[in-house]
Amino acid sequence: MDKPSTSTHISHQYNAELEDIRSRVLAMGGMVEQQLATAVTALVEGDATMGELVLSTDFKINAMEVEIDEECTSIIARRQPTASDLRLIMAVIKTITDLERIGDEAERIGRMATQLAKAGTLKKQCLELEGMGNQVKKILHDALDVFARTDAQAALEVARTDLKIDRQYEGVMRQLITFMMEDPRSIPRALDIIWSARALERIGDRARNICEYVIYLVKGKDVRHTSLEQIERETLSSQ
Amino acid sequence: MDKPSTSTHISHQYNAELEDIRSRVLAMGGMVEQQLATAVTALVEGDATMGELVLSTDFKINAMEVEIDEECTSIIARRQPTASDLRLIMAVIKTITDLERIGDEAERIGRMATQLAKAGTLKKQCLELEGMGNQVKKILHDALDVFARTDAQAALEVARTDLKIDRQYEGVMRQLITFMMEDPRSIPRALDIIWSARALERIGDRARNICEYVIYLVKGKDVRHTSLEQIERETLSSQ
Repeated sequence: MDKPSTSTHISHQYNAELEDIRSRVLAMGGMVEQQLATAVTALVEGDATMGELVLSTDFKINAMEVEIDEECTSIIARRQPTASDLRLIMAVIKTITDLERIGDEAERIGRMATQLAKAGTLKKQCLELEGMGNQVKKILHDALDVFARTDAQAALEVARTDLKIDRQYEGVMRQLITFMMEDPRSIPRALDIIWSARALERIGDRARNICEYVIYLVKGKDVRHTSLEQIERETLSSQ
Repeated sequence: MDKPSTSTHISHQYNAELEDIRSRVLAMGGMVEQQLATAVTALVEGDATMGELVLSTDFKINAMEVEIDEECTSIIARRQPTASDLRLIMAVIKTITDLERIGDEAERIGRMATQLAKAGTLKKQCLELEGMGNQVKKILHDALDVFARTDAQAALEVARTDLKIDRQYEGVMRQLITFMMEDPRSIPRALDIIWSARALERIGDRARNICEYVIYLVKGKDVRHTSLEQIERETLSSQ
């Protein structure tokens, strides 16, 4: 299948518009990455000020989503894109929804981190989350990177790393359950950590979604609800 | 702004295609409603067989999402829709994403219900969820109804009922925390109920999203990230 390219249009203006939405998605992604990094630091360091900083930036990400969405609709109406251009726009519309929801999850982590910092943190438990937080920051960064490079093979590899996050999440959960059972007074604070771990796990899922849109964009095949093994067998072997 | 109508096209075939995606969304919505009802019953009745039934139907909902998505992309490529037709297609693309994720949440509830039934249910706590489950079934049904009727005013009213679910969720959470602190051995099972309550709360949020797409479809205005009061003031007052 044709590799999406914006260099083949007769209209330079149309090219510029497609390039513009791609860079806007990456700018939005960069902002979401920054928000996630701040949220994870707030959680791990028990820093209420950083936690509140996450809450105050969410509206910018929401505004970017709405703007990019409107730009996509406008391009469809004016340019009547087909084939790889249309797939690019569809992939963008879906990607920004996931990015916006990742921002919401980061905001949730920021809120929990603020509460935890004020209540006196459970430092030890937060440290358990640090490794998971780093892994989630990495998958988001890598997913945005494969989107930027439009690389389906790399997208499959990045999607696969989500399994590692799922295992880390299960480990964190097991530890927190033990901790709550040993010291029931810690339950409310432990639950805030559980919500944060859950939010991180969801961010991993959404980064994986972005990888799947990249595969759709390159291969023209919708690979959601398909196992990674099946994607590799059916889609990428035809390269 | 023009009320979306499919009766004004010269091409009967184009009309039929737009009507077809609308009815497919409603068929998918009906299936998701059924799945949610089964999941809530499984949870409340402590019925492992019904819980497993939810798990076995999720693939159908996933397949419907992919099919409708492809049909939308195909209509954009072939028909080059603009104005209200394009907004309908955009609203459909977003609605089916939320419906599919509601299906995932129902699946999660089904899985928790199965585990709880096998471990010996906490009947009392499950009863607390029954009221919340009924409210969530209602908001999903009503959201699909306003989608079917393309009624922005009703969409706003349905969206508002999500606040009631948020309050019910907070009540359920407070009770479960107390319960866990009183009897730490119940923590693992109580957490399964917490995940189910959380899933129900998320379904409420997604039903609210669907209402917002209906307002966008009718009014041509993106009302996500806008408070309900602001939507009413700015958007609906112009009727």
